[in-house]
Amino acid sequence: MDKPESCPLCANVLEGEIVRTAQFVIVQANEPLFPGFTRVVWRDHVAEMTQLSDRSRHDLMQAVFDVERIMRHVLAPNKVNLASLGNQVPHLHWHVVARWHDDAAFPASVWSPAAITTASSQRVRTTLALLNDYHDALRQHFQTNHDDQ
Amino acid sequence: MDKPESCPLCANVLEGEIVRTAQFVIVQANEPLFPGFTRVVWRDHVAEMTQLSDRSRHDLMQAVFDVERIMRHVLAPNKVNLASLGNQVPHLHWHVVARWHDDAAFPASVWSPAAITTASSQRVRTTLALLNDYHDALRQHFQTNHDDQ
Repeated sequence: MDKPESCPLCANVLEGEIVRTAQFVIVQANEPLFPGFTRVVWRDHVAEMTQLSDRSRHDLMQAVFDVERIMRHVLAPNKVNLASLGNQVPHLHWHVVARWHDDAAFPASVWSPAAITTASSQRVRTTLALLNDYHDALRQHFQTNHDDQ
Repeated sequence: MDKPESCPLCANVLEGEIVRTAQFVIVQANEPLFPGFTRVVWRDHVAEMTQLSDRSRHDLMQAVFDVERIMRHVLAPNKVNLASLGNQVPHLHWHVVARWHDDAAFPASVWSPAAITTASSQRVRTTLALLNDYHDALRQHFQTNHDDQ
């Protein structure tokens, strides 16, 4: 696939990279209100899931669900939100977001206007304290499973 | 799985049903600003994708991607948005949303505050005119492929 120079997700290194495989990159999103916010970025410049081959689509979803599983295990959120939007950057990337009843927007989406509360600040601190463990678990899982690619 | 009486997605009939199989229900969302808004509701009361069996998770994603494929074919959106949130109703349901550059919220998410414009009203009318064809294509596809279940 083409790598348009104007596409920020086609860069050789992405901000917040945790894991990079031959197929995808897992990044810590820069979303201060939602520290449990991970993105899985497909490396090829493709806009829609149904433009991928069956095999690639399966591999990408497998990565998304592996992230969800590790996120649930380490961060223990009340809910996980999954989304592939791409309206601003039409290059496939999945948002995998740990949500808590006391986070800054719950039960609204993280794309809805946030109502910051004291409780949400405590939630941010609690989640930040777990981030190293979470990232280590992601690295361990994906390095183990994707070293051959 | 339990079917809590308080869960609206456990009802025997859902508003806007287009297709019902043994595993999932496809509904037209009641979202007047976004007529190309389809939901795929898993019939069992399960909160997270990683709580499903591998087979069920595959089948649900296959349905979501089949909806996306038919949506792109019939409605020809500029982008498709996919999301499984479940903060308000923690019963698995996927949002499959046809997006256009001139719709009521683009490039923001449909969960962001909408700025309604004249262009978006025209977009709503154009999409509404295609809905019967879209729903017929969904019925034809899923009835053909899921009659045996």
